[in-house]
Amino acid sequence: MQVSNAQLIDGGRAIEVGLGGKPHRFHALWLRDNARDAATRSPGNGQRLITILDIPADTRIAGATAANGTLSLTFEPEGTTIDYDARWLARHAYDAHPRREPGWTGPEIERWDGSLLNRVPSEAWRDVTSDRCALGRWLAAVRRYGFAVMTGTPTEPGTLCKVAELFGYVRETNYGRWFEVRAEVNPNNLAYTNLGLQAHTDNPYRDPVPTLQILACLENSVEGGESIVVDGFRVAERLRAENPRWFDLLSRHAARFAYEGSAGLRLRSKRPMIELGPDGELLAVRFNNRSLAAATDVPFEDMDDYYAAYRRFAELIEDPAMEVTFKLQPGELFIVDNTRVLHARKSFSGTGKRWLQGCYADKDGLYSTLAAIEEEGPLEQGSIA
Amino acid sequence: MQVSNAQLIDGGRAIEVGLGGKPHRFHALWLRDNARDAATRSPGNGQRLITILDIPADTRIAGATAANGTLSLTFEPEGTTIDYDARWLARHAYDAHPRREPGWTGPEIERWDGSLLNRVPSEAWRDVTSDRCALGRWLAAVRRYGFAVMTGTPTEPGTLCKVAELFGYVRETNYGRWFEVRAEVNPNNLAYTNLGLQAHTDNPYRDPVPTLQILACLENSVEGGESIVVDGFRVAERLRAENPRWFDLLSRHAARFAYEGSAGLRLRSKRPMIELGPDGELLAVRFNNRSLAAATDVPFEDMDDYYAAYRRFAELIEDPAMEVTFKLQPGELFIVDNTRVLHARKSFSGTGKRWLQGCYADKDGLYSTLAAIEEEGPLEQGSIA
Repeated sequence: MQVSNAQLIDGGRAIEVGLGGKPHRFHALWLRDNARDAATRSPGNGQRLITILDIPADTRIAGATAANGTLSLTFEPEGTTIDYDARWLARHAYDAHPRREPGWTGPEIERWDGSLLNRVPSEAWRDVTSDRCALGRWLAAVRRYGFAVMTGTPTEPGTLCKVAELFGYVRETNYGRWFEVRAEVNPNNLAYTNLGLQAHTDNPYRDPVPTLQILACLENSVEGGESIVVDGFRVAERLRAENPRWFDLLSRHAARFAYEGSAGLRLRSKRPMIELGPDGELLAVRFNNRSLAAATDVPFEDMDDYYAAYRRFAELIEDPAMEVTFKLQPGELFIVDNTRVLHARKSFSGTGKRWLQGCYADKDGLYSTLAAIEEEGPLEQGSIA
Repeated sequence: MQVSNAQLIDGGRAIEVGLGGKPHRFHALWLRDNARDAATRSPGNGQRLITILDIPADTRIAGATAANGTLSLTFEPEGTTIDYDARWLARHAYDAHPRREPGWTGPEIERWDGSLLNRVPSEAWRDVTSDRCALGRWLAAVRRYGFAVMTGTPTEPGTLCKVAELFGYVRETNYGRWFEVRAEVNPNNLAYTNLGLQAHTDNPYRDPVPTLQILACLENSVEGGESIVVDGFRVAERLRAENPRWFDLLSRHAARFAYEGSAGLRLRSKRPMIELGPDGELLAVRFNNRSLAAATDVPFEDMDDYYAAYRRFAELIEDPAMEVTFKLQPGELFIVDNTRVLHARKSFSGTGKRWLQGCYADKDGLYSTLAAIEEEGPLEQGSIA
């Protein structure tokens, strides 16, 4: 990448430099702090060896030269010269700060509705366990759509944990490393009945919430019992398009969730149904009629509108146009991003048996494994042995 | 609790009622949604059996009677009458909505500085494993101070996982269920050297971040190697008192964290150093010089001030007046709330050996177990057998 026109700003407190023909400004302190030389970052593990307090507060750039895609900067008062790769700088430029609407998401996320039914992301167990590329495609689908199906898995109990271990680690909870989902007598959770379950995210009463859930089918010979997934991010977008104030109410006020279904268990959380980052990025959706507790963080004046917003959110979630429905067969499973995609179950009956197993895991491991696979090469079919 | 003066508001869309002599307003929808009768909530597991869409949008209260601490309400158009416990209503009242400053915390949290050294919360392994009350006190200390010491634990490898299992579940990561902290050749993490480590929270490059960390000592015969803890919530409070704009900059703009120290590992996150809930509640502090990545979410115009804020935050963290220092002996461990309390290590040398083990866990289990123990009775010494 071409480096051109390096010009000091404000006595060297910042610099403007052309990267591939585009001008960018960087601060001297930012540059010094993010240096990648061996005295600043461990060459072995990439960790920073210094602290911000090792960098003089009056750091400025005293000189700049460019050659072969490298920008060399001399910092005073340290009197040290450090090289910067122009491509790294361009990738980390912060000068053009985009204005975004609340609820924005990055380009790696594609929101969807029921029309996704014709292209449900799916890979076979045989492939993801033998082909890094197939595993990468499956993980990339979870990042893009917030869910994916896997076919042809062994129907032995606990296989779903092996799926989690393909990319990360099981999050153990009071339900165990994994749990059985089948109709029980005296269930401690309505999931263990044959009732239909409204579309929901799991365990919103937990903080941190499990960010991934896997549901694997071992047997499903009942009438009904289909699985449904709904893109909570698409629902949130529809809500905001219809009524920005309703979106605002569900994101600005915390909801409360609780699960106290067993002795010794008093799980409680306080988080909004629509969670935004400080820059308005849509981070998470929480929705669960069974464990929603009394809202106590909404002012009296806003409560009627808050309930109107909650009702409309629920209506949009229940809108058949938003649903992707499938019936899991033995050996099939699906994974959901539990901070985004809601799942539901239709009620079931008949003489057969419905036996699923569920487990939780977290997105940090999934994204890390995916990023590592993507570094190895493109994810097209068969491109990685 | 006395119930008095029930008066319908707005044609029954809300009600005003005296609870223990204090007037409170509740909305008809809120009351109907939060009913605890057997048709609304499962008597067995407490989960809600209906959804918001089962409740008519035009729900109103048609009649109210009070007797013996119970408020009975008749709802139209459902035509159903439901009883409410006055104490439950008073506990969940939302009418008086407090105005709070950004960075507020609840009454269960006590911020501290170095003067806590004289009353470091500590319990013995023998007690917490035999006395629910001692365990409750230890967990309550974690909630109040964000850390606690345990003495007299077995010095067998892996004991720290048994400590986590006293209240919850280990969060397994790429470092394992637990990990060894001792000086290594070619370490993949600077923690595995004899260098001092600046006070930090662990794994901010993970999302969700592990919310608890346990560090247990098996051997510590070196010179140096003391442990230090610092209350990040107190530091954030000091920063805001000094300069509200700096507090605002660190909470309003996301930082980036990354750890790419091993092949196959590309952990990256985007979260602010000071995380607030939508109502300004202080939720988490993240601080780690080793894994802080380049800030790319701060506008150019704010970057100089952002760095000034970050520098001052670091200075306050390093202020000796904020530190509680102790040297772990074999069989001693400490737990930190990794979303609040930073920990540091002094460098060490000499002929001896320093061998710690670390593991992660999550606060949901800890708070749940603590709440369950608190329901059993008060936590005074010996009050629970």
